[in-house]
Amino acid sequence: MSAADALETLLTAGGAELARGLRATEARLAEVAEGHGPELGRHASGTLSAGGKRLRPVIVFLCGGSGEGLLRAAAAVELLHMASLVHDDVLDRAPLRRGAPTVFASGGRGAAVATGDLLFSRAFAELRRTGSEPAVAALSEASSALARGELVQRADAWSASVSAERYLQRCELKTASLFAAAARLGALLGDDSTPADADALAGFGRRIGLAFQILDDVLDVSGPAERTGKHRGTDLLDGTVTLPLILARERDPDLAAMDLRALVSSPAQADAVCDRIARTGALGAAREEALHHVAEAKAALTGAQLPESRGEALQLVADGVVERYA
Amino acid sequence: MSAADALETLLTAGGAELARGLRATEARLAEVAEGHGPELGRHASGTLSAGGKRLRPVIVFLCGGSGEGLLRAAAAVELLHMASLVHDDVLDRAPLRRGAPTVFASGGRGAAVATGDLLFSRAFAELRRTGSEPAVAALSEASSALARGELVQRADAWSASVSAERYLQRCELKTASLFAAAARLGALLGDDSTPADADALAGFGRRIGLAFQILDDVLDVSGPAERTGKHRGTDLLDGTVTLPLILARERDPDLAAMDLRALVSSPAQADAVCDRIARTGALGAAREEALHHVAEAKAALTGAQLPESRGEALQLVADGVVERYA
Repeated sequence: MSAADALETLLTAGGAELARGLRATEARLAEVAEGHGPELGRHASGTLSAGGKRLRPVIVFLCGGSGEGLLRAAAAVELLHMASLVHDDVLDRAPLRRGAPTVFASGGRGAAVATGDLLFSRAFAELRRTGSEPAVAALSEASSALARGELVQRADAWSASVSAERYLQRCELKTASLFAAAARLGALLGDDSTPADADALAGFGRRIGLAFQILDDVLDVSGPAERTGKHRGTDLLDGTVTLPLILARERDPDLAAMDLRALVSSPAQADAVCDRIARTGALGAAREEALHHVAEAKAALTGAQLPESRGEALQLVADGVVERYA
Repeated sequence: MSAADALETLLTAGGAELARGLRATEARLAEVAEGHGPELGRHASGTLSAGGKRLRPVIVFLCGGSGEGLLRAAAAVELLHMASLVHDDVLDRAPLRRGAPTVFASGGRGAAVATGDLLFSRAFAELRRTGSEPAVAALSEASSALARGELVQRADAWSASVSAERYLQRCELKTASLFAAAARLGALLGDDSTPADADALAGFGRRIGLAFQILDDVLDVSGPAERTGKHRGTDLLDGTVTLPLILARERDPDLAAMDLRALVSSPAQADAVCDRIARTGALGAAREEALHHVAEAKAALTGAQLPESRGEALQLVADGVVERYA
């Protein structure tokens, strides 16, 4: 059985605590979408129900086990994730996400900015009900990091000099911070966790987030488009310099010497640059980097005192991130 | 001496607790702008230092008196206010605010959405340090209300059927909620306040916020442009239906019958509609409505047990809101 199948079994097994938690999270997200006036409902219910893997809530529940605040935390991290997606779609003028029209496409820029703001606000409203100041601190740090990551990405757009180190810093901000927060919130709000667990599990979340982002960036270059729902080289077209391009530039001096903006001005050209990146072997090297972070994530788990079943489930989550992109 | 002059004296008197609090707030806002990477600093320091009246922090300090958390609360409400302005400028594609280029103008849509998100996040990061769950609750409710107000405004744009009641609901969300939160935070975090004070002072803040928004909307129709920094009828041009137009429609059936979108498609036409609204006497009626809320605000103050000097200062704040638009 693949890790994905094993995880699927874990998630849908009727009696499991995790499956109950995830169902309760869905119900809570639907309540939030419907509970703030028809103006939000119209835009947000589509966004919230469009689903996705709910990977961040899964991490909350598996890191936390049981505890009253876990549902709040699971809803909060997903609301924050959704808020950032809704705003990203404004920046990218994206028409579709997961096959459904984005809030930007259906409601316009104004509705999308405001809907994102409202989802952000509801994330904090959910979490503060736990009464845990460290939990609110973890969420506000992650929320700041997401926005900083977006700013760094804008500042580095089209740059010829983005290093792998700078790229990884951006991934920390944009993606890893919220995975780390999800794990930390689980540990903070779970009934039987210790402060040492919180740090170890946050380290797990962070590494998983890095691997997740790197593999996502590899997929943007490798395709196929059927997997991503968008054509290859979307990042190239908006000037986002990711690890595959950075590593390819190190291997192909001609590519390094070229101005990205001049090189990529149409989807057909982006396709050609993707092929050129692939020919350097950079995709394999980037995948290796991601696998390194997955291994480090698993190693971090040994620092937390988790019941065996939850530890094994988190290993499956780690493997699932890799398999998703295999 | 006018209320504005009296308030100015109050704010700048070197020894006063309020003046110290406001100076500390400025310093804290500058730290936040500089403390989150050059990407934020570039965009946010202009926004945060562009100043304004810092009316919301003034309300925090006057409602709270003394207390360790007041500086956090003052910075938090101003950060949230700034975040909403930065996002509003994206929606309105505004080139200038208070005579300086907006983040939207200098950094583009992406930088402005992300900068607003970061300022939102820092507002919660500031306030959670008070360790007060009711305080974080008040901020997250206000933050949600701001976003809902924006959504309602978008939903009602160009509508011929927006009632005065619906308009006031929108003002509650968009403006009054944050004034109410500022007052409540002051009371929650002030050393000598009671729960009854918090409700009374939140009522004061709410009424001041309503008056503030109504008078701002009157000024958009009455001009002069030198006062507002933008030409008359900006609201009309983007389809925002405000109290002057609502009251004018009740008085001028021909105006009521006309389609706003057809009526206002150029600044010159907006100017003409502003004149037409003014001729109905709607501006005076809208000002009356604002004065009613100022009177109610002052009445609400009697429900709070404040030292005489702070009560008098809050009366000056109320009068100052009116005078600003006189």
